[in-house]
Amino acid sequence: MPETTAPSPAGFPAEAALDAAMRAALAAAGLGPRGANPLVGAALLTADGALLGTDHHRGAGTAHAEAALLARLPELAGAAEIASLTLVVTLEPCDHTGRRGPCTQAIIDAGIRRVVYAADDPHAVAAGGARTLRDAGVQVRSGVLTEESRALNRRWQAAVREPRPFVTLKLAQSADGCIAAADGTSQWITGPEARRHAHELRARADAVLVGTGTVLADDPSLTARDPAGTLLPGQPLRAVMGLRPVPAGAAVLRGAGQEAPAAVLLRTRDPREALDVLYSRGVRHVMVEGGAQVAAAFLREDLVDEFSLHQAPLLLGRGLPALADLGIGTLADGLRFSPDPAGGGPVRQLGDDLWWHLQPG
Amino acid sequence: MPETTAPSPAGFPAEAALDAAMRAALAAAGLGPRGANPLVGAALLTADGALLGTDHHRGAGTAHAEAALLARLPELAGAAEIASLTLVVTLEPCDHTGRRGPCTQAIIDAGIRRVVYAADDPHAVAAGGARTLRDAGVQVRSGVLTEESRALNRRWQAAVREPRPFVTLKLAQSADGCIAAADGTSQWITGPEARRHAHELRARADAVLVGTGTVLADDPSLTARDPAGTLLPGQPLRAVMGLRPVPAGAAVLRGAGQEAPAAVLLRTRDPREALDVLYSRGVRHVMVEGGAQVAAAFLREDLVDEFSLHQAPLLLGRGLPALADLGIGTLADGLRFSPDPAGGGPVRQLGDDLWWHLQPG
Repeated sequence: MPETTAPSPAGFPAEAALDAAMRAALAAAGLGPRGANPLVGAALLTADGALLGTDHHRGAGTAHAEAALLARLPELAGAAEIASLTLVVTLEPCDHTGRRGPCTQAIIDAGIRRVVYAADDPHAVAAGGARTLRDAGVQVRSGVLTEESRALNRRWQAAVREPRPFVTLKLAQSADGCIAAADGTSQWITGPEARRHAHELRARADAVLVGTGTVLADDPSLTARDPAGTLLPGQPLRAVMGLRPVPAGAAVLRGAGQEAPAAVLLRTRDPREALDVLYSRGVRHVMVEGGAQVAAAFLREDLVDEFSLHQAPLLLGRGLPALADLGIGTLADGLRFSPDPAGGGPVRQLGDDLWWHLQPG
Repeated sequence: MPETTAPSPAGFPAEAALDAAMRAALAAAGLGPRGANPLVGAALLTADGALLGTDHHRGAGTAHAEAALLARLPELAGAAEIASLTLVVTLEPCDHTGRRGPCTQAIIDAGIRRVVYAADDPHAVAAGGARTLRDAGVQVRSGVLTEESRALNRRWQAAVREPRPFVTLKLAQSADGCIAAADGTSQWITGPEARRHAHELRARADAVLVGTGTVLADDPSLTARDPAGTLLPGQPLRAVMGLRPVPAGAAVLRGAGQEAPAAVLLRTRDPREALDVLYSRGVRHVMVEGGAQVAAAFLREDLVDEFSLHQAPLLLGRGLPALADLGIGTLADGLRFSPDPAGGGPVRQLGDDLWWHLQPG
């Protein structure tokens, strides 16, 4: 436990300390996975600016960053010290009772008297946290590194405002960009480690979406399974979009227990229309898994918020490309992505394969 | 400095210690770059099996692994201890005076009395090291982890035996496997860090080879340059293969000082024929940089010993593929690679881009 320092009852720690703590909180935020929730990090510091700890939101259904950090309060600070601490959060603490109680209540209950946050919560139902805290006598400041926090969640915030689900494009391809050989064979391009990872990503999404072409070519079940084939906890809604008929015997139409009812069929080629239907069914994070036409349709409409690429050290020459035409004629019009820091770093080796984690722009 | 232990004059350290030291030497070997020379590592251990240090060969023109390690002898062991040490090398010490003196002489001069190596040197001119050492009274053993050492240099050894240059295929592509957009624009797909790295790789090769199609499309100079455009020390021979005429004004035909004479034109589409000519000109390591036809020709003939892939987080949809047809119809016939441990690991982030370092099989 750090030494107890004389509390500065009226004030917050010095600006430089707040800035450093917010940067630490932003770095912690980047450890969480993207999805239905924004990346959020929190930090706790003493009145004289010493950093006691950081934490982050680990994804849907888990504690928010500030709640996760406050749960560790007994090990971070002495009881007498709590009233002098400042809680730094990259997003305005939520004020609504979702799967977890509101963070505002957790902060008040913990005895925290000072809160600094970076960016307002754009989510109407969750906003209002600052007012609730002030009403309870907590000193609240905002505006520290607001731009950095917004940049971290730019695409997520845009999706929330529209509103539509946050979209992850997930492809698995050869090193030369094929999702199948010339004869259509595609099982398996990637190895067991990458496939296991892909199923874990699937289990985190609210829905998985493919095109009718993929159903006709590969007959995938689209459930999230462990290597033994057992359903993982938390099955995504399965969805198929497109105008071609899906055969009655398709694997996506077979229910797999209560957890995984038969797939939703979206009779459209328009990705926005597909997202509207999914949103109305409560989907806030959809994983688009192809094929080439569906992937290209989402990319063309700038509807890809996160790009998850599994790549095998395999060359197929002229196989089936992962992407249909994007309507790009010249290099300057290419779709540029950048490494996504979320989820613990943009590149990971999975067995012999590679996972590349990208974000638009 | 470690404690001096009682020498065991007749014997080598215990088998388990030799085995562990050879594994350490193999791991060190993997830190070197692939190219005209094999990956070689060395380790030094005391009579009772304590590991004093390891080193590795850093590429053409630099000290061999055992010479690099022996140069550090004064800091690793006391003079009185040297005669009791065992030098462990992953390849038979060379016996010829190349750019450096023979390693056998360095070993004898250093006063080392015991040498263990893993695999014989397949290079006729360098072989015979073991005999020279024995003639000088050095105790020599071989056969420790021979298979592991051969596996590390399997492709290199095959090239030496044939003989032909060791071939690195080096491509720079978008995340969807394009080397240019539909209109042929390709400058630049990768960013400055990846391009700088590519020039460093070029400077290490004896020759750089492209097809006439690439010359006609991009008019590259094929010199190895720093970011300011200055020639790096050690220019590769520039070579162009193919049957299409190269324009007299092409950049590859302009000499760039004494270091970079005009390119060699190889009037053939047969990669073996091109390699024969390059070998006869002293080239032992060639970097094949495309285009799609040349890359595919080398891959189809199983002449790619190392695959260096720079990849940009960019999507082009239907651009120009990095590879022409490989004649692969079904997934099982795809060309499988595996991560290459050489050069410090198979995956590296270079700015926003990725470097993937692969080996066949």
